[in-house]
Amino acid sequence: MSRAITSLANPTVKAARALHMRKAREESGRFLAEGLKIVTEAVELGRAPRILLYSAEAGAHPLARRARAATEAAGGEAIEVGRDILAKISRRDNPQTVLAVFDQAFTPLSALDPAAAPCWVALEAVRDPGNLGTIVRTADAAGSGGVILVGDCCDPYSVEAVRATMGSVFAVKIARASVAEFLAWRAAWPGSVVGTLLTATTDFRAAAYTPPSLILMGNEQAGLTPDLAAACDVTVKIPMRGRADSLNLAVATGVMIYAATKG
Amino acid sequence: MSRAITSLANPTVKAARALHMRKAREESGRFLAEGLKIVTEAVELGRAPRILLYSAEAGAHPLARRARAATEAAGGEAIEVGRDILAKISRRDNPQTVLAVFDQAFTPLSALDPAAAPCWVALEAVRDPGNLGTIVRTADAAGSGGVILVGDCCDPYSVEAVRATMGSVFAVKIARASVAEFLAWRAAWPGSVVGTLLTATTDFRAAAYTPPSLILMGNEQAGLTPDLAAACDVTVKIPMRGRADSLNLAVATGVMIYAATKG
Repeated sequence: MSRAITSLANPTVKAARALHMRKAREESGRFLAEGLKIVTEAVELGRAPRILLYSAEAGAHPLARRARAATEAAGGEAIEVGRDILAKISRRDNPQTVLAVFDQAFTPLSALDPAAAPCWVALEAVRDPGNLGTIVRTADAAGSGGVILVGDCCDPYSVEAVRATMGSVFAVKIARASVAEFLAWRAAWPGSVVGTLLTATTDFRAAAYTPPSLILMGNEQAGLTPDLAAACDVTVKIPMRGRADSLNLAVATGVMIYAATKG
Repeated sequence: MSRAITSLANPTVKAARALHMRKAREESGRFLAEGLKIVTEAVELGRAPRILLYSAEAGAHPLARRARAATEAAGGEAIEVGRDILAKISRRDNPQTVLAVFDQAFTPLSALDPAAAPCWVALEAVRDPGNLGTIVRTADAAGSGGVILVGDCCDPYSVEAVRATMGSVFAVKIARASVAEFLAWRAAWPGSVVGTLLTATTDFRAAAYTPPSLILMGNEQAGLTPDLAAACDVTVKIPMRGRADSLNLAVATGVMIYAATKG
């Protein structure tokens, strides 16, 4: 029998709400995901929630019943809550009717198998969580193996980033590395390492993408730093033909991933 | 001599702040843009602000002086304001130090010249202002002629959409049409009309893109409606190789625009 929480002051409610803050995510190693669709995606991938929170109506949905069973089978808690509690935890006036707390699952760089996918993505110092989440979603859709976060990046487990992944946060491997760790790891990369650079002269469609390709994208404002640009086999430009001097990072990454995985 | 406003209750402040609401934008035919970069972009394209609002420090910047001169030369008002007023108008704790009110500039469908660019974008019932703004930015960067909004779309002049355009809202033609108007206009389109559809069987890279290409993208959730899908010369799919069942709309549009403008 699942328990219910009715108090906004309940410690579980407070802990879940605190996951909007990076500090609380880092200390707990957990994150918050919203919505039955994304929770179902997680359960299908064998990632049971630590804590599942749902409204009375939502709890009766067959997929929610399945998520509840998976949560409890894995030793987690499935808890019915009121809409006021869902709103408080999600910090939204119109909250999703299912929220869940999961363990973060960074993959160590050394555990990535380059040959497992035709394309991988590395992001240097990405700043915008919406961009990062959208890139994780794109990587998943395009069959990339995963996303490597290099240097000081925003948190892929922030609520905003997770929301933008639309569930792909559970499907794609996510690793993180310092610049030095990345450079050492990249030295053994078996395929092409292709970076985008505004000053490059090679059109992105003209580069060789020998699988597994590693697509290297720089920060939203500054692009790739010289050290990472130098680590590429080739740097390429996506031609800018209008007045805009750059693409949104997630759009540019999508264009690159599909260039690397043609055929 | 420019005037200054110090009262939060000033009617100009109230009118500028009201531009966060679609109703106020539609009634006034105006919109709000934030930041010296985007205002400078507008001025360079011959679009002077109706009202320019700036902090004392920002007003001394050479580009801000130029924007002030352009505003006043066009009969608009350049007004120095405090940070509290900038924060109130922008609804941000950390506002940009330059804000400006511009006239909206929809281009009539009949005034678009298809031959003026190798690629154009039409969006059916786009919902998310961030997506729409990012698509306008992408269209600009890739040298598309413009973006046609078909059916019930979100507002390209909302604060969030304008922000995502990063200034491209002034560089790209934006038109809007009912489905019937669009279909009548499309009948005379001289190049390829290519739409994306999850159920299509042709890979997007295998389609013929005879310039000027018109790329037709559907709503975030539902995709293209049957009427618009039927209006395409060819419908294509962007292959989904992972678990994600779709791309973010702005990413998908970027991938399509670059496929249509290769070479």
